[in-house]
Amino acid sequence: MTQTSVDVQQQPSGTQTEGAGVSVLPELPVERGSARKPGEEESTSVSNLDRWLARRLLAATGRLPIAIELWDGEQLTVSDESPRFRLRIADRAALWLLAFDPDLQFGELYSDGRLEVEGGLLEFLETVDRALPLSHSNWLSTFIRRARRWLRHNTLARSKANVHHHYDLGNDFYKLWLDEQMLYTCAYFPRPDCSLEEAQVAKMDHVCRKVRLKPGDLVVEAGCGWGALALHMARHYGVKVKAYNISHEQIVYARERARAEGLDDRVEFIEDDWRNIRGTYDAFVSVGMLEHVGPENYRLLGDVIHNCLKPEGLALLHSIGRNVAYPLNAWVDRRIFPGAHPPSLRQIMDILEGWQFSVLDIENLRLHYAKTLEHWLARFEDHVEFIRDMFDDRFIRMWRLYLAASVASFRTGGLQLFQVVFTHPLNNNIPWTREHLYRD
Amino acid sequence: MTQTSVDVQQQPSGTQTEGAGVSVLPELPVERGSARKPGEEESTSVSNLDRWLARRLLAATGRLPIAIELWDGEQLTVSDESPRFRLRIADRAALWLLAFDPDLQFGELYSDGRLEVEGGLLEFLETVDRALPLSHSNWLSTFIRRARRWLRHNTLARSKANVHHHYDLGNDFYKLWLDEQMLYTCAYFPRPDCSLEEAQVAKMDHVCRKVRLKPGDLVVEAGCGWGALALHMARHYGVKVKAYNISHEQIVYARERARAEGLDDRVEFIEDDWRNIRGTYDAFVSVGMLEHVGPENYRLLGDVIHNCLKPEGLALLHSIGRNVAYPLNAWVDRRIFPGAHPPSLRQIMDILEGWQFSVLDIENLRLHYAKTLEHWLARFEDHVEFIRDMFDDRFIRMWRLYLAASVASFRTGGLQLFQVVFTHPLNNNIPWTREHLYRD
Repeated sequence: MTQTSVDVQQQPSGTQTEGAGVSVLPELPVERGSARKPGEEESTSVSNLDRWLARRLLAATGRLPIAIELWDGEQLTVSDESPRFRLRIADRAALWLLAFDPDLQFGELYSDGRLEVEGGLLEFLETVDRALPLSHSNWLSTFIRRARRWLRHNTLARSKANVHHHYDLGNDFYKLWLDEQMLYTCAYFPRPDCSLEEAQVAKMDHVCRKVRLKPGDLVVEAGCGWGALALHMARHYGVKVKAYNISHEQIVYARERARAEGLDDRVEFIEDDWRNIRGTYDAFVSVGMLEHVGPENYRLLGDVIHNCLKPEGLALLHSIGRNVAYPLNAWVDRRIFPGAHPPSLRQIMDILEGWQFSVLDIENLRLHYAKTLEHWLARFEDHVEFIRDMFDDRFIRMWRLYLAASVASFRTGGLQLFQVVFTHPLNNNIPWTREHLYRD
Repeated sequence: MTQTSVDVQQQPSGTQTEGAGVSVLPELPVERGSARKPGEEESTSVSNLDRWLARRLLAATGRLPIAIELWDGEQLTVSDESPRFRLRIADRAALWLLAFDPDLQFGELYSDGRLEVEGGLLEFLETVDRALPLSHSNWLSTFIRRARRWLRHNTLARSKANVHHHYDLGNDFYKLWLDEQMLYTCAYFPRPDCSLEEAQVAKMDHVCRKVRLKPGDLVVEAGCGWGALALHMARHYGVKVKAYNISHEQIVYARERARAEGLDDRVEFIEDDWRNIRGTYDAFVSVGMLEHVGPENYRLLGDVIHNCLKPEGLALLHSIGRNVAYPLNAWVDRRIFPGAHPPSLRQIMDILEGWQFSVLDIENLRLHYAKTLEHWLARFEDHVEFIRDMFDDRFIRMWRLYLAASVASFRTGGLQLFQVVFTHPLNNNIPWTREHLYRD
């Protein structure tokens, strides 16, 4: 597989850029080159139809400063500005695949090294995302928009099969780029310059305060990952926790942590599905599971919460979301992430309305997730040589695309992060204001 | 019209009861009596069919401790407890009207004095509201539920015609029971024991902070009432405001206040509809107007906000709402409050999704509106003798029912109060956290 210049590595890794604006890159030096594999047969020569297709593809992005470099080294642009990004397309088939099925092919071609992005992968994705959301449709821009959607879906929605596949990657892989407590969900940065470790602890406290934990409470957590939040609650809030997860590997890991800390009498990790939650609790929390539940199960999730939440209990759902629901691309739904879906607030109401749950508080932490992902991406790149010993180049390119596209989506509003606090409709034992979240 | 014991006046008026729980009243002394007008012909005698109907009505409330006293003094109850409330029904027609069309008739009969509630009107409404929302349906409970809905709709949804009718009541009337700055919307009580005046000022500051006003900003307010918020913004935040309102009387009043304070160069009160908002602004705020917009206009409202909000502007909608949308009763819609509607969050998404607005923050101030209304009701009762000089007894009974039913609805979750902050999807100049709302 071709090793071309790797875009994100051009950025200083390990350091965090401030905020979530678009970086303005210095103008690109124009280098001639080809993404073609060395020693391979020369691609067929470029036809006028190829050029027309490439130009339409560029025009559909709203004439952004992007050049396409075709397989013979020919460069095309439809922008009046000097290009800040160059898409290097390795062969005619790649161009046509990209044009006609970008939903599928952007990620496939990028992963295979048949599509290269120069000028910074993250910046490219962010620039395209920022330009497209509200542009007018034509047949090609619709393709591009579907490509953008695909990126988002592909990188952030994960089917159960994919979840298991991801976990089969092993804890050692995640330890290389997650925080030390292994939280694989959006952190909360009280200040933008907090470390990832600080921000993950702050996120756990933010959640605990939102559901107003008090000593002696019994808490249920749906989808507990490697167990950090459940352990944090028991350790710092004096509560007992039942934490559900269908991942055997994570449950085993979490149980070991509980034993090592002497918290196994207060935190029970249960290898089971949220549908099988039993008992009644003072608080229900779920951080980063809802994306995998699927809208078709929202009513059922509402039933489960209704049944397990005490009359004065508070519930919190923390989930990636959208400003408006996108229909899931059929291929993604079938092959990549069956059943996964970042919901819009409208869709979240499907969980809540059946039992007339009262929404007390919704907070959007979109830029906090962009920053969390910046940390992960930087740590990933810092450890890419270790990772290369574990996985092949295609895996690294996929993972890089996943992280970079996620940063871009959170920066440009294609994805949101909602924390929704709610309770039974008749519960008046609710926080009088939200000031208690910000004390200390 | 009969003057029977007036229920709410049995409570200490002028003082505020803490919290929003159901007051436990001392057991009612059983008094025999009749709501029949003195000197009137005796009603026809009570039949077995009347008794059956009254019992079905009681059973439909879930066997609450309520007695019905019929026009001949006969009392019926289906509860095992001693009755805490007594509904006195003055004649057979009233019973049958109540049973068959409670949506319309509860308020009508109460206003006319043909239906009396002993044991506290507010407590009665709250007890019934609390018992009914999730009970199982039968034909009579459906009637009752519709009655409850009617109460809510009747008291809180106001058609334009009704709005004008209300304003024709004159500022002197409102001055008797609103705060001194004449805010006719939910206050924000940083502490439950704040005065109404303090809480209305705190509400205005809460709104200003949520949209992060800074000196020099240009703000548009849709539906400005008597102008208090617009003036507060100009006075304390150094901004310029264009404030829209279709009520001539309120606009005249607001302009006078602006002139008297020397703020008329910075606050422009515009007698026009929100649909005609022109210009672009750093902030859009609307406090207590959305209830009157009607779901059929939500997309248009979204368009108006999209057009008038600068790329980095923040918008706030403050509105009475519901956990789930109720279909508006046909009679209410036609005769009482055409077009008015407290939206569910799902419905609010109709405003926001068309332009992919990003929801940053939703806060539910339900119990703050219950407390606000408790203050209004207490002040109303404190001034009832003044009001009796201005209006007839039917008006006073209607107004009392409106205020009491509103308190009950906010206490029992039939109504919510949402503050929704949102912005354009690409705006990253958003508050990093919400801590700034709680400083000082």
